[in-house]
Amino acid sequence: MADGEGRAVRFGIIGCAAIACTLFRAIKLAPNATLVAIASRSLSKAEVFKSANGVEDSVTLYGDYESLLDDPSVDAVYIPLPTSLHVKWAVAAVEKKKHVLLEKPTAMNVAELDVIIQACEVNGVQFMDGTMWMHHRRTDKMKEFISDPSLFGELKTVHSNFTYLADSNFLANDIRLNPNLDGLGALGDIGWYCIRSILWATDYKLPNSVIANRNPTFNDSGVPLSCGASLIWDNGLIATFHCSMQAQMSMDLCVIGTRGIIHVNDFVLPFDETFASFNHCSDSRFTEPIIGWRRPLPREEVVQMEIPQDARMVVEFSKLVVGVRDEHRSPEMKWAAITRKTQLVVDAVLASIENEFKPVDVHQG
Amino acid sequence: MADGEGRAVRFGIIGCAAIACTLFRAIKLAPNATLVAIASRSLSKAEVFKSANGVEDSVTLYGDYESLLDDPSVDAVYIPLPTSLHVKWAVAAVEKKKHVLLEKPTAMNVAELDVIIQACEVNGVQFMDGTMWMHHRRTDKMKEFISDPSLFGELKTVHSNFTYLADSNFLANDIRLNPNLDGLGALGDIGWYCIRSILWATDYKLPNSVIANRNPTFNDSGVPLSCGASLIWDNGLIATFHCSMQAQMSMDLCVIGTRGIIHVNDFVLPFDETFASFNHCSDSRFTEPIIGWRRPLPREEVVQMEIPQDARMVVEFSKLVVGVRDEHRSPEMKWAAITRKTQLVVDAVLASIENEFKPVDVHQG
Repeated sequence: MADGEGRAVRFGIIGCAAIACTLFRAIKLAPNATLVAIASRSLSKAEVFKSANGVEDSVTLYGDYESLLDDPSVDAVYIPLPTSLHVKWAVAAVEKKKHVLLEKPTAMNVAELDVIIQACEVNGVQFMDGTMWMHHRRTDKMKEFISDPSLFGELKTVHSNFTYLADSNFLANDIRLNPNLDGLGALGDIGWYCIRSILWATDYKLPNSVIANRNPTFNDSGVPLSCGASLIWDNGLIATFHCSMQAQMSMDLCVIGTRGIIHVNDFVLPFDETFASFNHCSDSRFTEPIIGWRRPLPREEVVQMEIPQDARMVVEFSKLVVGVRDEHRSPEMKWAAITRKTQLVVDAVLASIENEFKPVDVHQG
Repeated sequence: MADGEGRAVRFGIIGCAAIACTLFRAIKLAPNATLVAIASRSLSKAEVFKSANGVEDSVTLYGDYESLLDDPSVDAVYIPLPTSLHVKWAVAAVEKKKHVLLEKPTAMNVAELDVIIQACEVNGVQFMDGTMWMHHRRTDKMKEFISDPSLFGELKTVHSNFTYLADSNFLANDIRLNPNLDGLGALGDIGWYCIRSILWATDYKLPNSVIANRNPTFNDSGVPLSCGASLIWDNGLIATFHCSMQAQMSMDLCVIGTRGIIHVNDFVLPFDETFASFNHCSDSRFTEPIIGWRRPLPREEVVQMEIPQDARMVVEFSKLVVGVRDEHRSPEMKWAAITRKTQLVVDAVLASIENEFKPVDVHQG
């Protein structure tokens, strides 16, 4: 049997958050995955989700999470619960030998995340977080570009921002702003992507230190609504990011090397599901006299998508699950390592904010 | 006589730096300006410039700066000398009642700049610095957009970067990297534009404090090759910038309000001289489920140019000069005020670098 072409991975979804609708569709679109069960805190909530999303009758509904985890027909679970509940339910799932696709932010801190990752290692299950843009074909194409020394040279700086304008209802009620549920606020919700994009650009080389930007904003419960940071490496490399729930939507990534540059303004959620593009340029110079840019100018590269990035994430996760389930392979631990580095930087940003914006050293630990 | 439509302003150029070629062309293209004299440190240097640029025989060449300043046929001077010489020669020009178009960075620090500005006030001459992009019609259009509350809302954040890759010859020989000539390095050469763009976006509201980014790089003489900073205002507004002579060319500006956003990737020198564009978007939202952006997506607005931004700068400066020269108007001091705020932030970035990246308060003084 060819790699990852086994029987479809049977998914259960634990929790019916808004993002569960996205993954419900993604599992449907992924040829190597199938949804078999949905659990919510009550059966009625699961039924509301079923009717709102047109869930097939073949999918079992559960009114509690444990019962889904006890269902032997479930290979893997997608967990979109509030972040503070991740460690409990991810570990519970892993101990029932369920492979785990865990929504981001993955944990309240790296200590919690380590409990989850360790449980995955002990139980031999696949772990992946729900950072969808990592699985877009554009991301692969951009990586090709920045990995080519003749096009890109050596990485020098990265800037990323992800902002959106939360309305008053969201600010008052969303779990992402409740310190008892998702205390990481904008940093966990969207700063996560900026940090991931920076680590992605550096080939996951952890920065030596992280310095939070001054002027973060918080809600009355102390949950971040906007913040940012600079990340510093030994060799002069610097990256900055800004995230906010209080500004017009942006999802910008700019990666600059000595010889090349890429720009993308929809890196997390592409404007269109069937294609996406990025702008790149290599070896630009000034004209003489200095009145403009010498040709060639930055060019747009368009990447077509047969299935959207969320479905491609499910496909890639499911291939790994099939490898473990049917082919006695070891789980692919690179995804856990990437998640852990992201969480380490999230923790460092918060620590820097709490420590009066002093630099916080980042250690693999 | 209509505003600024008097006899053409008669320009002298003091110094034959590379950027003088740009202004030589700009003066030629500006209908209300004419070049009458060029001075260099020696007549032979002026003659080289003349033959390299096709300077008309009607233009007087001088082998020293004083003689040009003594020429009564010169109304205004453009000064592209190394920054450390600005205070001496700008003041000398002003005391001869010459209006001054001063290349940026305008001075080594605000104390020097204040000497220049005060001399302009005392002598009643027009001052403007050579920040060309301020005079592009696109800049006006972008300002219209961010000034419209229904399109842009309230300003929340700005990010700007300007980078280019200096070659080894430039790094070894360019005056911008010689501490005895232009000790501000990348900060003065290109960080100047980033800082100006941030101030422009805030309607020239000075930040409360400036914090330099860690990891600046310097040449062996201690001149900055790359650096950046965050600028902080009381109301939660934050802006960041990065400038470098060690990375592929970029000239990015992203301005984000609560309701709108603009992106431009060639804000200092447009890709094309006859038109330029910027992308803008208002009131973007996520789709439900969260798989993308709701329409309308960001749109490109194209602005046509009859004459390039450098020529438009000369036109606008010359109009003001005609007002003073022929119509007994007072010089327009807004340009000096904008220059001064830019220089104050430049100074604060350097002070923060020198003070171990601590915040530096910015005062109007």
